[in-house]
Amino acid sequence: MGYVKPATAKGTRDFGPLESARRTYLFEVLKRRFREFGFQPLETPAIERLDTLTGKYGQEGDALLFKILNSGDWMHGLLSAEGSVPESINSKSALEKVSEKALRYDLTVPFARYVAQNRHILAFPFRRYQIQPVWRADNPQKGRYREFYQCDADIIGSNSLLNEVDLLLLFHFVFSDLGLNNAQIRINNRKVLFGIAEVLGIEADFVQFTQSLDKLDKIGIDGVSKELINRGFTEEKVAEIKQWFTAEAFDLESLAAKLVSSETGSRGVEELRFVFSALKNVKDFTTELVLDFSLARGLNYYTGCIFEVVLPGSGMGSVAAGGRYDDLTGIFGLEGVSGVGISFGADRIYDILLARDLFPANTGDAAELMFLNFGDSYVSTLVELCQRIRAKGISAFVYPDSAHKISKQMTYANKAGVQKVASYGEDEAKEGMLVIKNMQTGEKKKHSLTEI
Amino acid sequence: MGYVKPATAKGTRDFGPLESARRTYLFEVLKRRFREFGFQPLETPAIERLDTLTGKYGQEGDALLFKILNSGDWMHGLLSAEGSVPESINSKSALEKVSEKALRYDLTVPFARYVAQNRHILAFPFRRYQIQPVWRADNPQKGRYREFYQCDADIIGSNSLLNEVDLLLLFHFVFSDLGLNNAQIRINNRKVLFGIAEVLGIEADFVQFTQSLDKLDKIGIDGVSKELINRGFTEEKVAEIKQWFTAEAFDLESLAAKLVSSETGSRGVEELRFVFSALKNVKDFTTELVLDFSLARGLNYYTGCIFEVVLPGSGMGSVAAGGRYDDLTGIFGLEGVSGVGISFGADRIYDILLARDLFPANTGDAAELMFLNFGDSYVSTLVELCQRIRAKGISAFVYPDSAHKISKQMTYANKAGVQKVASYGEDEAKEGMLVIKNMQTGEKKKHSLTEI
Repeated sequence: MGYVKPATAKGTRDFGPLESARRTYLFEVLKRRFREFGFQPLETPAIERLDTLTGKYGQEGDALLFKILNSGDWMHGLLSAEGSVPESINSKSALEKVSEKALRYDLTVPFARYVAQNRHILAFPFRRYQIQPVWRADNPQKGRYREFYQCDADIIGSNSLLNEVDLLLLFHFVFSDLGLNNAQIRINNRKVLFGIAEVLGIEADFVQFTQSLDKLDKIGIDGVSKELINRGFTEEKVAEIKQWFTAEAFDLESLAAKLVSSETGSRGVEELRFVFSALKNVKDFTTELVLDFSLARGLNYYTGCIFEVVLPGSGMGSVAAGGRYDDLTGIFGLEGVSGVGISFGADRIYDILLARDLFPANTGDAAELMFLNFGDSYVSTLVELCQRIRAKGISAFVYPDSAHKISKQMTYANKAGVQKVASYGEDEAKEGMLVIKNMQTGEKKKHSLTEI
Repeated sequence: MGYVKPATAKGTRDFGPLESARRTYLFEVLKRRFREFGFQPLETPAIERLDTLTGKYGQEGDALLFKILNSGDWMHGLLSAEGSVPESINSKSALEKVSEKALRYDLTVPFARYVAQNRHILAFPFRRYQIQPVWRADNPQKGRYREFYQCDADIIGSNSLLNEVDLLLLFHFVFSDLGLNNAQIRINNRKVLFGIAEVLGIEADFVQFTQSLDKLDKIGIDGVSKELINRGFTEEKVAEIKQWFTAEAFDLESLAAKLVSSETGSRGVEELRFVFSALKNVKDFTTELVLDFSLARGLNYYTGCIFEVVLPGSGMGSVAAGGRYDDLTGIFGLEGVSGVGISFGADRIYDILLARDLFPANTGDAAELMFLNFGDSYVSTLVELCQRIRAKGISAFVYPDSAHKISKQMTYANKAGVQKVASYGEDEAKEGMLVIKNMQTGEKKKHSLTEI
């Protein structure tokens, strides 16, 4: 008889015990800080209505949504009155006839949907965190998966820049908890970028300008210039833009001077000044905070401060990012609500922790103690002893198969990664003792049963 | 401009802060016990290959799988050489041409797939737990959702009945941790049922017999009888079956006597005897364990002991269940591997905990402390004070909008469920004190800043 070859779907992964325990460690660090900062948990369903998601991520994003086929006679909607599928129908026009649901693409749109839907019961500003998987029908490649986790924290319903300050503090504490002490936060403000566009006289093409600028890290200033030319910017403008973003780094004061003619740009500078100055007073905040006015963030819903965290030497782009948005919920009928949010890239952070050997030595995936099984006559005592050990909060179990040789049981304990092995056989029963062997050091210790 | 009505997809739910925190409490109780019992965590992807899932849950199950539409030009596979969709194609025959992936339907099949796929690196017996959502295109109704969590623990690669004993102990500790002290475990053995079938001479129709018997709780013995008649059982056989399952409860010894002619049935009785006797010695095991030889469990992969946990008075069916299977991984090419597993029904348990008021009073969804914001001149001190409070492990935040009236800030604190509110305004600054008000009792306490 044939059988099904066991395999995961393209771009998806299993997380075995060790990986799963390590991921739990990472998520617990995040959750502990989220809670400490007063963020409340939210979970939204994996499946959203297609109209909730469509059009929120651009055309490219729409194509990357995993659509769910309608149940039952899904072809019915495709048929004409004559009962056949008209030739005029194509994959795009037929889509809404066969699918009305999709898997969430990020946590931001479901969050906006939740906030709009629950506007009457929520207390604003609403501080929520959310750690859940998202799905994208991207072409899988190294470090890019079709199912991956996002870890978001947002404060919505408040204009105050104190929220930006709080999220930057959160960045600091999370990365220092993880032992990633060389984290660098890059900060900019979309209003500053708009100011630059105004000074350059290209404010009408602001979106195109920022979309190209966003690629600076990846394709360099020459790549950005080329792209801008292709987008129809004049050689002259591109030369001016190039000058801005190849100049020696300059500070907030010089920036303010250059943007003095732009009201929006000046407001952006003011906002950055507030954030820098508020953080200067927090002595625990030892993370490097760098003004980088070339930082653009591709997403067009950002309207104020934007940030990105990088870990120099990791060989990776940003490991966390975020920013201020002014109308995320407008599309769901709740207008004029400002918020600010950040997102941690769990997969990248995981890979860096692994590469730098920063996971705790014992993440608790394997049991601490295994009782060897010397035969059925010992079993009832072993079950009882095992319960007493567990009651002390030590993870333990009895090797179940009493007929297996002790050498086989030891091989198993080794392979399973058990830390200690307990013997209670003929000799130990006579003495009323339990012998516990440390699998790493080989050291053996005797314990009286009453002691346990 | 029109907007999208914010709504969740049919049969799915958001979990807001309080629900989410309560669910976390429930999952943490489970995880703590799973780990204490030496189970290792496993996570599998939400998306599985369609051929991994199809045919594993019967025809009904296949129809309830959420299939994912292929990306891109998904209609291409439907077209004939002439470029049109042939009339002979229907929703069923076209399915594999437009979809090759589906959402997982339970955790058991992905677990079997994982074990078969990783057979060479796993140490057997493999003890794993898994807490993840599953999806079913069922018609939603009260208490039945299209997206819900399963919480499973399995031990695979061992025939020993000690594994059954361990899982029954796990049932006991989980329900007693949750304060659900009146839990009752019902136990039976598929071999006993096969023995009854042999004694009745209906072993050839064993599957049909157990499928009907499985509905005893829901439709009563008359309903079961009617269904068996419809399935083609003779009136005479049905009368005999009825007699078995309406007799006064009898114990293991009487059952053994009645099944003495069936070798399989007698082995089933032996297995039950082992389990009962092993648990008798564990004094902590105070949960009622009841022999119920009418318990059938609908799933045909069960081959030995089967169990179900009910909470009398809850008005619900089983809240947890499981059993021994002998060939779960065979379909994936790994044959002859026996295992035993259990599953907790998180949604039902949640509802009962809520109805019985058994969730801890403070599940930690809202922040413990909010600092009132008396204006921009206090902000930098507040940020610093807030960090000192957080460093003590207390969740806290500063109300961000300094322009808002204190009464508005207090209303917010109330609605958000904040436990305490801290004041640091003009008077407090002069005194170098912080006033903390308990929102529930109204009590106020002064703390010197140095003390904090």
